[in-house]
Amino acid sequence: MRPQGQEEFDGHTAYDNVLTGELDSGPGSGPSPDTDSQGQGVPKDPLLFIQLNELLGWPQVLEWRETGRWVLFEEKLEVGGGRWSAPHVPTLALPSLQKLRSLLAEGLVLLDCPAQSLLELVEQVTRVESLSPELRGQLQSLLLQRPQHLIRTTGTRPCRGSAHPRESSHDEEAPLKEQRQNALRHKLPPGAEAGAVLAGELGFLAQPLGAFVRLRDPVVLGSLTEVPLPSRSYHEMGRAMAVLLSDPQFQWSVRRASNLHDLLAALDAFLEEVTVLPPGRWDPTSRIPPPKCLPSPHKRLPLQTQEVKDSSAPRRARAEDRHGHPQHTPSPELQRTGRLFGGLVQDVRRKASWYPSDFLDALHPQCFSAVLYIYLATITNAITFGGLLGEATDGAQGVLESFLGTAVAGAAFCLMAGQPLTILSSTGPVLVFERLLFNFSRDYSLDYLPFRLWVGIWVATFCLVLVATEASVLVRYFTRFTEEGFCALISLIFIYDAVGKMLSLTRAYPIQRPGSPAYGCFCQYPDPGGNESQWTRTKPEDRDGILSMDLIADHRSLQDLGLVNASLLPPPECVRRGGHPRGPSCHTVPDIALFSLLLFLTSFLFAMALKHVKTSRFFPSVVRKVLSDFSSVLAILLGCGLDAFLGLATPKLMVPREFKPTLPGRDWLVSSFGTNPWWLSVAAALPALLLSILIFMDQQITAVILNRAEYRLRKGAGFHLDFFCVALLMLLTSALGLPWYVSATVISLAHMDSLRRESRACAPGEPPSFLGIREQRLTGLVVFILTGISIFLAPILKFIPMPVLYGIFLYMGVAAISSIQFTKRVQLLLMPAKHQPDLLLLRHVRLSRVHLFTAIQLACLGLLWIVKSTPAAIIFPIMLLGLVGVRKALEWVFSPQELLWLDELMPEKERSTPEKGLEPECSFSGSESEESELMYQPKAPEINISVN
Amino acid sequence: MRPQGQEEFDGHTAYDNVLTGELDSGPGSGPSPDTDSQGQGVPKDPLLFIQLNELLGWPQVLEWRETGRWVLFEEKLEVGGGRWSAPHVPTLALPSLQKLRSLLAEGLVLLDCPAQSLLELVEQVTRVESLSPELRGQLQSLLLQRPQHLIRTTGTRPCRGSAHPRESSHDEEAPLKEQRQNALRHKLPPGAEAGAVLAGELGFLAQPLGAFVRLRDPVVLGSLTEVPLPSRSYHEMGRAMAVLLSDPQFQWSVRRASNLHDLLAALDAFLEEVTVLPPGRWDPTSRIPPPKCLPSPHKRLPLQTQEVKDSSAPRRARAEDRHGHPQHTPSPELQRTGRLFGGLVQDVRRKASWYPSDFLDALHPQCFSAVLYIYLATITNAITFGGLLGEATDGAQGVLESFLGTAVAGAAFCLMAGQPLTILSSTGPVLVFERLLFNFSRDYSLDYLPFRLWVGIWVATFCLVLVATEASVLVRYFTRFTEEGFCALISLIFIYDAVGKMLSLTRAYPIQRPGSPAYGCFCQYPDPGGNESQWTRTKPEDRDGILSMDLIADHRSLQDLGLVNASLLPPPECVRRGGHPRGPSCHTVPDIALFSLLLFLTSFLFAMALKHVKTSRFFPSVVRKVLSDFSSVLAILLGCGLDAFLGLATPKLMVPREFKPTLPGRDWLVSSFGTNPWWLSVAAALPALLLSILIFMDQQITAVILNRAEYRLRKGAGFHLDFFCVALLMLLTSALGLPWYVSATVISLAHMDSLRRESRACAPGEPPSFLGIREQRLTGLVVFILTGISIFLAPILKFIPMPVLYGIFLYMGVAAISSIQFTKRVQLLLMPAKHQPDLLLLRHVRLSRVHLFTAIQLACLGLLWIVKSTPAAIIFPIMLLGLVGVRKALEWVFSPQELLWLDELMPEKERSTPEKGLEPECSFSGSESEESELMYQPKAPEINISVN
Repeated sequence: MRPQGQEEFDGHTAYDNVLTGELDSGPGSGPSPDTDSQGQGVPKDPLLFIQLNELLGWPQVLEWRETGRWVLFEEKLEVGGGRWSAPHVPTLALPSLQKLRSLLAEGLVLLDCPAQSLLELVEQVTRVESLSPELRGQLQSLLLQRPQHLIRTTGTRPCRGSAHPRESSHDEEAPLKEQRQNALRHKLPPGAEAGAVLAGELGFLAQPLGAFVRLRDPVVLGSLTEVPLPSRSYHEMGRAMAVLLSDPQFQWSVRRASNLHDLLAALDAFLEEVTVLPPGRWDPTSRIPPPKCLPSPHKRLPLQTQEVKDSSAPRRARAEDRHGHPQHTPSPELQRTGRLFGGLVQDVRRKASWYPSDFLDALHPQCFSAVLYIYLATITNAITFGGLLGEATDGAQGVLESFLGTAVAGAAFCLMAGQPLTILSSTGPVLVFERLLFNFSRDYSLDYLPFRLWVGIWVATFCLVLVATEASVLVRYFTRFTEEGFCALISLIFIYDAVGKMLSLTRAYPIQRPGSPAYGCFCQYPDPGGNESQWTRTKPEDRDGILSMDLIADHRSLQDLGLVNASLLPPPECVRRGGHPRGPSCHTVPDIALFSLLLFLTSFLFAMALKHVKTSRFFPSVVRKVLSDFSSVLAILLGCGLDAFLGLATPKLMVPREFKPTLPGRDWLVSSFGTNPWWLSVAAALPALLLSILIFMDQQITAVILNRAEYRLRKGAGFHLDFFCVALLMLLTSALGLPWYVSATVISLAHMDSLRRESRACAPGEPPSFLGIREQRLTGLVVFILTGISIFLAPILKFIPMPVLYGIFLYMGVAAISSIQFTKRVQLLLMPAKHQPDLLLLRHVRLSRVHLFTAIQLACLGLLWIVKSTPAAIIFPIMLLGLVGVRKALEWVFSPQELLWLDELMPEKERSTPEKGLEPECSFSGSESEESELMYQPKAPEINISVN
Repeated sequence: MRPQGQEEFDGHTAYDNVLTGELDSGPGSGPSPDTDSQGQGVPKDPLLFIQLNELLGWPQVLEWRETGRWVLFEEKLEVGGGRWSAPHVPTLALPSLQKLRSLLAEGLVLLDCPAQSLLELVEQVTRVESLSPELRGQLQSLLLQRPQHLIRTTGTRPCRGSAHPRESSHDEEAPLKEQRQNALRHKLPPGAEAGAVLAGELGFLAQPLGAFVRLRDPVVLGSLTEVPLPSRSYHEMGRAMAVLLSDPQFQWSVRRASNLHDLLAALDAFLEEVTVLPPGRWDPTSRIPPPKCLPSPHKRLPLQTQEVKDSSAPRRARAEDRHGHPQHTPSPELQRTGRLFGGLVQDVRRKASWYPSDFLDALHPQCFSAVLYIYLATITNAITFGGLLGEATDGAQGVLESFLGTAVAGAAFCLMAGQPLTILSSTGPVLVFERLLFNFSRDYSLDYLPFRLWVGIWVATFCLVLVATEASVLVRYFTRFTEEGFCALISLIFIYDAVGKMLSLTRAYPIQRPGSPAYGCFCQYPDPGGNESQWTRTKPEDRDGILSMDLIADHRSLQDLGLVNASLLPPPECVRRGGHPRGPSCHTVPDIALFSLLLFLTSFLFAMALKHVKTSRFFPSVVRKVLSDFSSVLAILLGCGLDAFLGLATPKLMVPREFKPTLPGRDWLVSSFGTNPWWLSVAAALPALLLSILIFMDQQITAVILNRAEYRLRKGAGFHLDFFCVALLMLLTSALGLPWYVSATVISLAHMDSLRRESRACAPGEPPSFLGIREQRLTGLVVFILTGISIFLAPILKFIPMPVLYGIFLYMGVAAISSIQFTKRVQLLLMPAKHQPDLLLLRHVRLSRVHLFTAIQLACLGLLWIVKSTPAAIIFPIMLLGLVGVRKALEWVFSPQELLWLDELMPEKERSTPEKGLEPECSFSGSESEESELMYQPKAPEINISVN
């Protein structure tokens, strides 16, 4: 193992990052632990930090000031604001580059200068014939002058590692400056070197004087130019030099330059590649923010300039990166072996070799925070879905089962599975199916849990058959079309259910309207004697006086009216004292419906708002991350707080008081038949078949997403092994009457995201680059052990109002449906063409075709919804599978090019269509432009939220 | 008068717009109606539309296709997408420009070619020595080939106005193409010309062949290049030529070029000015969206290239444009005459000359939509503030007074005032003061309206004194600091009041908690006999059976219990039948509090959301504009709809049933003393003094904002006349017991915005340029006449729930406080420096100083709030005036440079500080860069929402 912290410097410049990124995104990522940090055989030059010092104050008080700095992007000193500007893309005026070229051509060029100190260097530089000794002295003292920093953030670092005898002697502030520098130095990799550009105007020089020095050892690039030109010019030339030096290719050439000619050739090569913005269309002083992703340096690398372009390679890379969504290229894990259980055996063999490291790799502080985050997310899920499952099945399952099941199934999966970063959850499609199954068994008066047990047994059997036949390789036929149809349907069911449950609350607690005579409720006690004399036992006295709003008056007022055995006690109190609440308003609890609605909306909106805090400008990034990551937890807490504050009797989550199944009177182990006829255990095979389809689709779609190439997993996937584990867990959970579990996309992706390894050393303006994920089994295991322990915290859960959970449920549905491309295309339907975002999709497919594709998807979704709403709802897994067929049929409607942009290609198609045919406009505009457009697709993995 | 529609083409290119914009934003905009469309003496060349046709399909099926077009920005044909890309800043590769240069130098250049048709032109072009007759024939037929357009949006227009004998003969689709073209042609001014760039690769040509043709008559720029180079190259060179041609300066030079040398010199001049983006930092294929504002072509104009820069002129222009907020430069209207009523006389004289045109200028369809918009906004205001005023003054004023007063005062002001675009409103500070005055008079048991009459009389007197002494010129001391303090305080009062009123509703309609025994209510009728025998008159029979939830059962149930004179009727029904509601829950109306809260939040959030629809991507811009403009109206309608849907007895707006004052028993004319002692009419001078200060500040701050230079008002302002009108209206409204009126910033700005004149002809990607405002008196007048008529619609208003109005009130407060710079600076306090937006302010002032300034403002605001919360609240106008003093004192803390960026300079300071001293870093970076930074400030007026 490498020392901790060191690895973050592995891919330290964008230059390298993009390079390795390009190489790594290719298909297949078998056990080759170091591919991501090595790259190819190009010798890696150290990172260069460049700063521009300008000579200011001429002719009165000459002093050097640092006015700009570059690593990858430009940071300008904002003198008035006293701070560094935000990093931005540097822009130059073309003439300044040309002037710089002529200055270099005429000036002094010292390559591999052996100077060991600034003094020596200055002496070498000023040894120019044209200078008189007096001028030389003046110049020397000027060059040796310590730079003034308007803000003391960074000092000059002209010779890293070399001794500065003269400078350090009169530099009292050195430690302070060093301290302040740390902020930036922290971001630079250890081997970084510095280059200084000095530019200034000197009245005593007769002509421009330029000098370019490359120190021999340690490698230093320094340039020193004094040019008596009008004031803007030298500033611009200094910037031009600095920008030149910050260019990796120029650096590469200059480090290897052996004479002036090489230097100028490097400059000319730079000029060949610059992009030109015409005047008057863009203000040159406006700052262009750094792009999300840098253009690929591939074709800029000196090694490859002469290489013939291979048109199929970028095309393949592109198909994977276009949507941050890989073409399901058959990875080695998904190749059919042809033997029974061949895939499973292969998976077990592959994962076994990583097993010890799966525990050792967890020894990193990052894993602690990952555990905390995923633990909270897991119990939020367990509470929400446990609560909903309990409602959907009339208590056949509940929160306790949810906690227990999550802990047992999750921990078992983490220990055994092929992809131990997966978090299991009993959510989404399985929840929908379970509800349908329960309704079915209720309609036919079946004993639910035994029936469910048999369904589970059959499902496990079918799944084992699927494992044996290596059915997992079929996932390649699940394209984005299937995936999004699946996700959209489930999301809509979430949204529909959340709103539906909320509305059913308003029916349970009706709102009193002024028109309805819902007033009046009193408490009547059983008539002890039955004779009428009691009604007149007490004399009414001073009726007006006693009918105050006083809390004690309620009983007396009716007594005074002659009703000794009635009072105005609230219904629950009345029942407690043995009376009967009488009157139309006794059974309506006011305010509950509206308050529930408020709680519902509050938790939904608050969760949504917190999710977006991540991209806001406020608060430090740590705070934003916490608020955003724990948005659901915080929204639930807020809802509980509001509820507790008002103290209304809103419906709460039902939690058993002790550790026993939620359904009263059942053992943990479900009886095999219950009151069901014996043949039902055979008939259960039919729903089990449907559920098997559903579980296969859900599990495998998730597995494919989790094992995408862009996550750079080193230890490989285990599709067959994962599915095998799910099948075994089906058996276990059915036998214990616990919820059924499959891999959950969102929470698993969040788990992976919290374990990202990123380069800490990156240039200002450059986003940290993604190095990989800490693949191990320990974080998941600890999370589920904690979940198991949390069963004993369950009594606290009874304070959670149900409307809050419905709000979170709605949030999950909305978040899931907003994350898919399908939704973006539906939005396009509402946008005038002029305002549509500049999606790559729209650049390549006609809008009418895009709309047609969207309309077909909408129609499929409508059909699925109709099926779901009929008594035949339970067959919806088959309909979902039908999406694959519809997608296949779409090949008759859309061209492969269109499908490539709108969806992905299905495996056979990909093989049968020649690579060339996939270039949509190869005859029209060169593939070069095509390829570079794609550089703007983020390379690092993005978390695509989707349900389950 | 010019023909309608024609004027929109006045400033038709960005080139001209920016130019005239620069010239017009200078101080002073007296009656010079045509300054905005004339500009200086540069002869204006017609606009050039450039298109690139490429020869594709070599070697099989050669055809010309239009692949790009340029007016100001580039639109690229997206072949796959079948549409034009969004307009973007064109980027070029430097080598393509250089290759183009050599091609031009070696190629054919025909200047002032007399060709009258395409055939002639083609013959001329192909008359090159190097071509064999056979090749020439091939080339000619190729050039005469009709271009194929993948999407038939635009055709070639090589020679506008010239006959196309050959082309039109075989062009059957011509009318269709013309039709489709209209979308773009509509945007081009009538005189526009077209230039065509043709580029292609021909195998039969031995060497690159370039031709540049300028037709003599009508002026046409055409270029024709056939280059047998690798495929990307000719495309890039074609683009380079097109971009060159789209450059105004290149156009200017080329129109005047007399030989090849001039042409190449123009190209070199273009190269001198290009901006260069280094490779690897920015992907050249990414599209840069058009900037909000184009850089000034000032220094690019050929006439001015040799001019010496005048550093003070841009500085002055800058001070005005920096924040879209003018430095209160003394305009002629604000110069003291030194005579009593001198300013007023001058104002009347100036405005009198425009009076007839104030009605004639309204004859434009735009005015109809302006009337509708402002009418709805005005009655929304009248309802909201009428309702609030009615509550604040216990009905001394109400909605009816609000409507009547708005109509009378508004119409009178529109007829008399100096700035007839102003809309009066009784909002903001005056409303706050009126509430304080009412509370004061209630505390001392004064007769409010007579007391108010005397306050009004005194205020009018003081105001007349202020008019006489030309006090309006003092507005120059109201800097942004004062303005924002004023606005922030009033906004906070709005927000505080809205939330406070909402909370007071929850006290009026308490929520029933389970603990409180608030159940039980019955209706008791007066005891007719008084003896107890009645209680037993009827025998209770089958008590359980009759106590159903039935609507009829309520009366019988208690009768059956022996209570003949009691029932379970709801309290209002009970009272109506002459009974008394008895019991603890009779006086609590359930659900009202929470439903009110829901209405409050819904109307607030809905109004906020609708306001933001304007900047969303959805819906056509007309729909977005309507939704956004009528956000308050729609939010009120939604609230009313929700309320009507549930039918709960929420508190509603109180509206009198007939046309009489809201306060019962008073005449329209307020009695002069009422029950007040006579000396109160003298004592009223004291609050009147405070109110005068408030009205002066409110009126004049608004007037200054409305008369900003950037609105390009031609008819001048009338500060003295406006204030005089306000004084007279004070008298009138006090006498009639109507609300007091001053100019309302937001709604007046909305009025002006709805009367904007904008250029319709603008290049794709270029925002329409602002030409001025239709200054007239008619729209305002019609709005207030309609408001007057709306008094008879008042009965409808009683359906508006008060919580909805509170929600709108909150929205107004939040919108107002979010619009000021102060809020942005407060937000900076919460942002880490890294995430702060790239504000110009932050580029020039140290963050700590910015925070200090914000902290001082916060402290002032806190002090004002404390004063407002004490019994001395009524003196808050003096405290507001104190802000001017605090601002003055700030000159001891901050440097003029800092204040220039954070605020504005006060008049004396501006005069005493030499212009040079205001250049914060003139010695550091040239003013050129400073100036161009400022080009990014929007030139067209922006509506800054602020309260009142």
